[in-house]
Amino acid sequence: MSLLLAIRGWDQRYWQEKFQALLHERRVLLPDEVSDPAYVEFIAAWKHAPGSLKAYRNTRAVFSLGAGVDHLLSDRDLPDAPVVRIVDSDLTRRMTEWVVWQALDWLRQGARYRAQQQAGQWIDDREQPSAGDISVGVMGLGELGMASALALHQIGFNVAGWSRTPKKPEGAVSSMPCFSGSDGLSTFLARTDILVCLMPLTPQTEGILNQSLLSGLKQGGRLGGPVLLNAGRGGLQDESAILKALDRGVLFGASLDVFRQEPLPAGSPFYNHPKVRVTPHNSAMSHPDAIAGQIVQQIHRLDSGGTLLNVVDRQAGY
Amino acid sequence: MSLLLAIRGWDQRYWQEKFQALLHERRVLLPDEVSDPAYVEFIAAWKHAPGSLKAYRNTRAVFSLGAGVDHLLSDRDLPDAPVVRIVDSDLTRRMTEWVVWQALDWLRQGARYRAQQQAGQWIDDREQPSAGDISVGVMGLGELGMASALALHQIGFNVAGWSRTPKKPEGAVSSMPCFSGSDGLSTFLARTDILVCLMPLTPQTEGILNQSLLSGLKQGGRLGGPVLLNAGRGGLQDESAILKALDRGVLFGASLDVFRQEPLPAGSPFYNHPKVRVTPHNSAMSHPDAIAGQIVQQIHRLDSGGTLLNVVDRQAGY
Repeated sequence: MSLLLAIRGWDQRYWQEKFQALLHERRVLLPDEVSDPAYVEFIAAWKHAPGSLKAYRNTRAVFSLGAGVDHLLSDRDLPDAPVVRIVDSDLTRRMTEWVVWQALDWLRQGARYRAQQQAGQWIDDREQPSAGDISVGVMGLGELGMASALALHQIGFNVAGWSRTPKKPEGAVSSMPCFSGSDGLSTFLARTDILVCLMPLTPQTEGILNQSLLSGLKQGGRLGGPVLLNAGRGGLQDESAILKALDRGVLFGASLDVFRQEPLPAGSPFYNHPKVRVTPHNSAMSHPDAIAGQIVQQIHRLDSGGTLLNVVDRQAGY
Repeated sequence: MSLLLAIRGWDQRYWQEKFQALLHERRVLLPDEVSDPAYVEFIAAWKHAPGSLKAYRNTRAVFSLGAGVDHLLSDRDLPDAPVVRIVDSDLTRRMTEWVVWQALDWLRQGARYRAQQQAGQWIDDREQPSAGDISVGVMGLGELGMASALALHQIGFNVAGWSRTPKKPEGAVSSMPCFSGSDGLSTFLARTDILVCLMPLTPQTEGILNQSLLSGLKQGGRLGGPVLLNAGRGGLQDESAILKALDRGVLFGASLDVFRQEPLPAGSPFYNHPKVRVTPHNSAMSHPDAIAGQIVQQIHRLDSGGTLLNVVDRQAGY
């Protein structure tokens, strides 16, 4: 029996070695190494070609190698097996780092001071706002959204949240204003200087970052206009609407870790847009050892009669 | 009676307007507007020319316009009046923002990803460390140092502290390892990947960031080498030692908000050094309204028979 790795865009051999080092009792195979699909017992996948997993009819579980599972659920020919996502505190911490890093870089005018340094200029900004002057709105209040909201609150930002269904924050952010549903969205957007998008990609959220949403964000404000941070999924983005909003000043800036097409193709206008900061979908890369370790542990749970953890609700999409 | 503003490097007229708008019962003067020095009752100063305040013999208090007071205490001809510093929670929060911003920018390889974006490249780093892999050492455990240590801890860094005399941290950082004195310094440095310097400038700390200290920092580590963040005072720096350490790889990078000569002169090697990030001494600029308001409040305290707050211990130097 074997574990199949169905990976596009990442180095397959690298992952094969990681998994094989941990999974002694099974072979770890790449698609072109499979001689009989019936012997594939588990699949660990990242952005596989839709339809390409159809033949693996004896699959007992399909594991996502990242936090999102949209790349699996959007494949109608996925084997009829539980879909399992990664829940990793390391991933959560890394996402939080990225969100706070980018929020602070916009707050503290990173691009301005880097340009001044390069020009050999020494000019400060006496009207520099502090975090308490800025309202951050976190869209998506799952594990990543809540952790980011807490970290942004601790650094001093005014934080609010929005989610599709009502959520009740706990602990240090229990008094954070939370909005929900389409009714709450416009109120939420109208108070937001920095929009942090950490939603799952589902049929309901596809393309949600569109012209209508962006133009609902608070105009003006101490940053010069609203800023979008998206570390959720590229599919949430209407990318031409984002570019237009930037060019028309409806958006002041954007930090984007995800894109509709990844790798972002050479020549994309996002690369050289002065108001855009691009990171290559690594805001919250779990360490490969942690991911492989967690999946191998789940396989061993099944081997010893246990049940899978973190199984996805296929209906909700996350 | 009047308040004299003795300011160099900042826009004097701007400050004069701020103060005059708050201080209705006294005139706010610039040095060349003073006809009789005996009528100067208070001085608010930032980097005045040493010796230039000698004539104001009736001064009742000298207020610093920034957190540090070394610019006042180093002047042997300062009027014999209480020296008062700014203690401002807004300033503390801004300093914390700068420290966390810069620590995250080194952790998350900001320069690398900005260069890649400019080159239209999409390359991630599978071995990216997270904050928990990095030890940050905060030198100087006053109000600014403790607040920064807490924020760095909350974002996930391993934080330790060093101070000249033993300090006991409280609250969420009460278990933070703290070192003190020259005995504790080498142990502290040897565990430090990112050194955050928030010390006052005194005769004891002058030039403390020298070759001997820098070469004691932890070599190697997950960032590629140690990184220095200095937002204390330029006078703490042996600047040629810092440049040498960067060029020899003893230091991996430095974020410097302060310099021996400010404004940093055009042509300084710090401006175009690829391993240096320069900000123009604005890591923790209080809002001018907050500073002027606090000083005017202190004057009104004296007027109504009260005593000054935040008077400096001239012996200790802070």
